[in-house]
Amino acid sequence: MTVEVISVGTELLMGSIVNTNAQFLAEQCALLGLSMYNQTVVGDNKERLSDAINTGLGRADIVILTGGLGPTEDDLTKETCAQVMGFSLAEDSHTKDRIREYFKNSIYKDIPDNNWKQAIVPEGAIVLDNDNGTAPGLILEKGEKRAILLPGPPNELIPLFNGKVKPYLQKLRPELIVSQMVKICGVGESQVEDRLLDLIDKQTNPTIATYAKTGEVHVRVTASAPTKEIADKLIKPVVKEIKKRMGTAVYSTREEETLEMAVVRLLKKHELTVATAESCTGGLVAGRIVNVPGSSEVFREGFVTYSNKAKRRHLDVSKSTIKKYGAVSKETAREMAVGGAFATDSDLCVAITGLAGPDGGTEEKPVGLVYMACCMGDKVTVEKYQFKGNRNKIREQSVVKALDLVRRTVLESQE
Amino acid sequence: MTVEVISVGTELLMGSIVNTNAQFLAEQCALLGLSMYNQTVVGDNKERLSDAINTGLGRADIVILTGGLGPTEDDLTKETCAQVMGFSLAEDSHTKDRIREYFKNSIYKDIPDNNWKQAIVPEGAIVLDNDNGTAPGLILEKGEKRAILLPGPPNELIPLFNGKVKPYLQKLRPELIVSQMVKICGVGESQVEDRLLDLIDKQTNPTIATYAKTGEVHVRVTASAPTKEIADKLIKPVVKEIKKRMGTAVYSTREEETLEMAVVRLLKKHELTVATAESCTGGLVAGRIVNVPGSSEVFREGFVTYSNKAKRRHLDVSKSTIKKYGAVSKETAREMAVGGAFATDSDLCVAITGLAGPDGGTEEKPVGLVYMACCMGDKVTVEKYQFKGNRNKIREQSVVKALDLVRRTVLESQE
Repeated sequence: MTVEVISVGTELLMGSIVNTNAQFLAEQCALLGLSMYNQTVVGDNKERLSDAINTGLGRADIVILTGGLGPTEDDLTKETCAQVMGFSLAEDSHTKDRIREYFKNSIYKDIPDNNWKQAIVPEGAIVLDNDNGTAPGLILEKGEKRAILLPGPPNELIPLFNGKVKPYLQKLRPELIVSQMVKICGVGESQVEDRLLDLIDKQTNPTIATYAKTGEVHVRVTASAPTKEIADKLIKPVVKEIKKRMGTAVYSTREEETLEMAVVRLLKKHELTVATAESCTGGLVAGRIVNVPGSSEVFREGFVTYSNKAKRRHLDVSKSTIKKYGAVSKETAREMAVGGAFATDSDLCVAITGLAGPDGGTEEKPVGLVYMACCMGDKVTVEKYQFKGNRNKIREQSVVKALDLVRRTVLESQE
Repeated sequence: MTVEVISVGTELLMGSIVNTNAQFLAEQCALLGLSMYNQTVVGDNKERLSDAINTGLGRADIVILTGGLGPTEDDLTKETCAQVMGFSLAEDSHTKDRIREYFKNSIYKDIPDNNWKQAIVPEGAIVLDNDNGTAPGLILEKGEKRAILLPGPPNELIPLFNGKVKPYLQKLRPELIVSQMVKICGVGESQVEDRLLDLIDKQTNPTIATYAKTGEVHVRVTASAPTKEIADKLIKPVVKEIKKRMGTAVYSTREEETLEMAVVRLLKKHELTVATAESCTGGLVAGRIVNVPGSSEVFREGFVTYSNKAKRRHLDVSKSTIKKYGAVSKETAREMAVGGAFATDSDLCVAITGLAGPDGGTEEKPVGLVYMACCMGDKVTVEKYQFKGNRNKIREQSVVKALDLVRRTVLESQE
């Protein structure tokens, strides 16, 4: 069963807003096991909208239209879709009552005349009550084809979809779709694909798809089956094989778990605390850790030591080390990590010092050169990276590598 | 002249990522005076991609394709577009050299074999060097029709578009489109619209459009004219009027200048230094400041004091203050700011302490309650905010308000 999303709105074509609705609907449809091959954006224009609906219904079983259900003259989705599918329009008294009710306790004393337009619906359509606005959702069925119309504001669309459209779509699908994510850090996308190529090529159920993120690769394993048990049985050996091949580069197999969440979870498990001593990343590593709810158990403090003086003052980096090797050196990184752990009484401290550019690079120490160190007890691991890209990209990659360094340090300490 | 965006990528159809590229390109094309009537998303599938390109070139003068230029077998955009438009493929030695160069100092020792695929280009295409990745941008011209192919990662696409595609598109347009941004902080979008309503309604050339960002509102004034001089003359009085009405809430009128850039510029101008003392924002304020090239002149160090002990140890917040008023209080915020300025010998220090949730809220101190203080010499300003949204949203809003607090403190000190 295939589905297509048509987003209606000139504001999307002007770039005034990002199309988060399409992402939400695509994700939901994938989870429901519906195949999506196309998404379209059109403006509030009768002719082009008719074309899009005709094309959509021609190639997909279900078309989901969002936006253009408002009260103004510009809003044409309902009228156009009804015309294309051969429905006539009539007033729906239930919706009319709901609109009256909606405005009752509103800040607007009078109901704007054009709002009554929203009580006009295609005759025979399924009307989905909207608890967060005046435009109801609509389902139009014609033979094997279906059009689902939803209001554009996400705070109306999401509850309508979750509460009413999802159960409707679930009934249409006999097969269940289950997927599991394997999240990888420290290995590039093409290397991951190299190592998994035969698996990716061989598999049809479950399927394996890779997604590149900054410094990370996510691998999604998706199975289709009549029950969750059967789907899980299909997925399990594939995930096991991926984990075996990728080893400790796998930081999580939980859908919602970010790298920083995995790091905090690992630290909590071993009852360890971590501190941060950041130069070029300027607090972003601490920022990522603190973004995890409950991180206060494992993270108490961090330093942003951008100047050499600050490195000396708070982290006790020696003047001679900076003079001899420079602020961006493995020696300085090492002393920052050791000094940071000492100053904060933390079990671990991760330190980052590097050249994020755009200026300050030399032939010997080019922009993108980043040293990081992680101190745990007596052991200090120092790593050198040469990142590509602009200042922001260099810093983003540094943050991911620093979080991963903490993770690997803890894992290695437990071996 | 019309343009259409075709975004290529199964991850968009699966809802794994939001299509921010389409929004960026739509906004940019609108600024260039190009009309966009359709946007399409298709997967990495030769047949459907061919259909989309054929349809796009049938109804628009220019088709911009994003994604599917990677090194893997899935990536088909270049091959498919070349085939549809009748271009043959050949190796480009310049691009091959660039790929070799790109991997030279990389953390990956060997260049993966499949990366060489990215040196194959349609013969006769304009090759756009990509400084942030291995896939070059491409422009294919055939009669009056044009296809522009750009890599999917935004950190590659945006610089390529700004640096190379924009000038190319500008040359195609006889009328010049010139726009100026007025960036506002600390005032909500509806308030900005209220104050500018008559201007927005009255204007047709230049036009005025508002864009809401986290904690900010951007107002774009856009004029169309035969020369830059005429366009500037149309824009200037409107920008002047907007600045007059919005006062010091305007932090910049430079397109590329972010709030943190404006703050760093202001501090540099007055030869002031700032330090940060962060609790709930966990280093993100420092991270934003350090993101500005050259920020080392004004920012030397910062503290992430997530625990009470760290607040006492590094910022000299008194035990009794925390005990009496709590860590999230105006008293603690004040002492953090004063202590941070003292500990770092900085002219200013901004401190943030709040409840980002999801847990820890009470009736008296609900989640979203954030105190921030800015100390400058003898003067300390303390502000209280009650933010809405999840943990991340609360922290993002706090960061913007903290940066703006620094800005306003400096401005007020100069009055």
